[in-house]
Amino acid sequence: MSVDAAGFEAWMRAHQALAEQTLEQVLPAAEHAPARLHAAMRYAASGGGKRVRPLLAFAAAEVVQAPVSRVALAGAAVELIHAYSLVHDDMPCMDDDTLRRGKPTVHVQYDEATALLVGDALQSLAFQVLSEPSLADDPACQLEMVRLLAQASGSRGMAGGQAIDLASVGQSLDVAELEFMHVHKTGALIRCATLLGALCGRPLDESERAHLDRFAKAIGLAFQVVDDLLDAEASTATLGKTAGKDAEANKPTYVTVLGLRAAKEWARDLRAQADAALVPLGPRAARLGQLADFIVKRQF
Amino acid sequence: MSVDAAGFEAWMRAHQALAEQTLEQVLPAAEHAPARLHAAMRYAASGGGKRVRPLLAFAAAEVVQAPVSRVALAGAAVELIHAYSLVHDDMPCMDDDTLRRGKPTVHVQYDEATALLVGDALQSLAFQVLSEPSLADDPACQLEMVRLLAQASGSRGMAGGQAIDLASVGQSLDVAELEFMHVHKTGALIRCATLLGALCGRPLDESERAHLDRFAKAIGLAFQVVDDLLDAEASTATLGKTAGKDAEANKPTYVTVLGLRAAKEWARDLRAQADAALVPLGPRAARLGQLADFIVKRQF
Repeated sequence: MSVDAAGFEAWMRAHQALAEQTLEQVLPAAEHAPARLHAAMRYAASGGGKRVRPLLAFAAAEVVQAPVSRVALAGAAVELIHAYSLVHDDMPCMDDDTLRRGKPTVHVQYDEATALLVGDALQSLAFQVLSEPSLADDPACQLEMVRLLAQASGSRGMAGGQAIDLASVGQSLDVAELEFMHVHKTGALIRCATLLGALCGRPLDESERAHLDRFAKAIGLAFQVVDDLLDAEASTATLGKTAGKDAEANKPTYVTVLGLRAAKEWARDLRAQADAALVPLGPRAARLGQLADFIVKRQF
Repeated sequence: MSVDAAGFEAWMRAHQALAEQTLEQVLPAAEHAPARLHAAMRYAASGGGKRVRPLLAFAAAEVVQAPVSRVALAGAAVELIHAYSLVHDDMPCMDDDTLRRGKPTVHVQYDEATALLVGDALQSLAFQVLSEPSLADDPACQLEMVRLLAQASGSRGMAGGQAIDLASVGQSLDVAELEFMHVHKTGALIRCATLLGALCGRPLDESERAHLDRFAKAIGLAFQVVDDLLDAEASTATLGKTAGKDAEANKPTYVTVLGLRAAKEWARDLRAQADAALVPLGPRAARLGQLADFIVKRQF
């Protein structure tokens, strides 16, 4: 392992721990009424996952040297949206998954009604956290952050992508249609995490914002291509969730549309696009570059 | 009908129409992708209901003479949260209702997965609408409005109340426990609507806020008592939703806990509490008083 790689590894572990700790702080205590709902919210949102979205917020914050404590809250807000989407996606009427991060999914561990409410309440909590007065000096900028998260989560963002995904089952999509789906389903929130991290520092000028967004768009797609590759290649044990579900559910993926080899090349190409977007942002964008490597190179 | 009553009726119709029109404007166009999701969101949120929450916002706004166009947006945000909660509450894993406002519920008209996403996306849209820059002069006050809506919607508000409601099926609750449930399930959002309407005008001083909140808390409970009375007494045709569901589902209601007669008295008593809270707010609170009458006296 190179010195750089070791440094990144340490940075990542420290910031994953900070992300966990922040989620622990913002999630309601499990002993407070309604206790079962609160316990289930904690079950769903704490202690699992790579926390890629908070990590993107932390890395983007380094570009403008934003205060880490604020970025932790913004990252937690995005992660709560992500966590709610996993709970709802796993439900029987959606993907009907029983395993997530190596644990029974929320509707299996609790029940369907609780899973529904857990997702709903995690979404509300995300907006509550993001509107905390301690999060920004400039309330107008913070309001824009709220708006960005709402857009990224809604029918023209993540929830819309999920709807397109549902409609695509059994359909034959081309690469452009597949990209349209993923730009919404996973891309919107990843771009939002990156922008919010930087906005915790100061309002961004147009070109900074465009570069960051180009980076995040490429990395969001790369993330999905890698997910499809992992789903096609990995075993359930490695993945911590049920493997091969996509093929089984007859869902189009980058692997089924492009083939394994071309999908791998596409992931590398997107990585290069992301790298190119970082150049104009200068040396403070180095952490974003390392994180992009981590995202694209994991497991394969 | 007295002059006052006729005046209120006209005010109510005009503001219900404005609430409808605002929802029409903020809901995504049904022809925009993902079209099916957008059509279902419109099906769920437009053209139905008495719009009690926006009406409360409009009436509270009169206390501080807040600009109507802003209040319309704040009221729409609260109504979108209410609409999402109805969609999710009607789903098979919750109340399993097939009829709402005289129409098939969203999961019946579309499908369960779509209903789940409709609710999720309506919640995001609520926060998007409430964070629009045109909504307030003071972004710090507007951020507080976002926070109030998030709290009222989440695990310590509406979603929490729903969880308590689920846990109460088949249980024998006393009046205090029933009140605890309803203060969360319906009360939190009604109080929020009232406060947000006034906050569209200016930050409130502590006593104004306390009076408004006392009014809204009483009226929120009264609203629920009346709902229980209607459910026990009305036919499905009058109600526009399946009648007698609560008794059938073995859910405790004010009617089952107090009896019909005492429940009616309790509704009147809450109405008097609401009235008393308005006195210190002066003549500009008259509209809130009329609205309270409308809420408590509807149908019985």
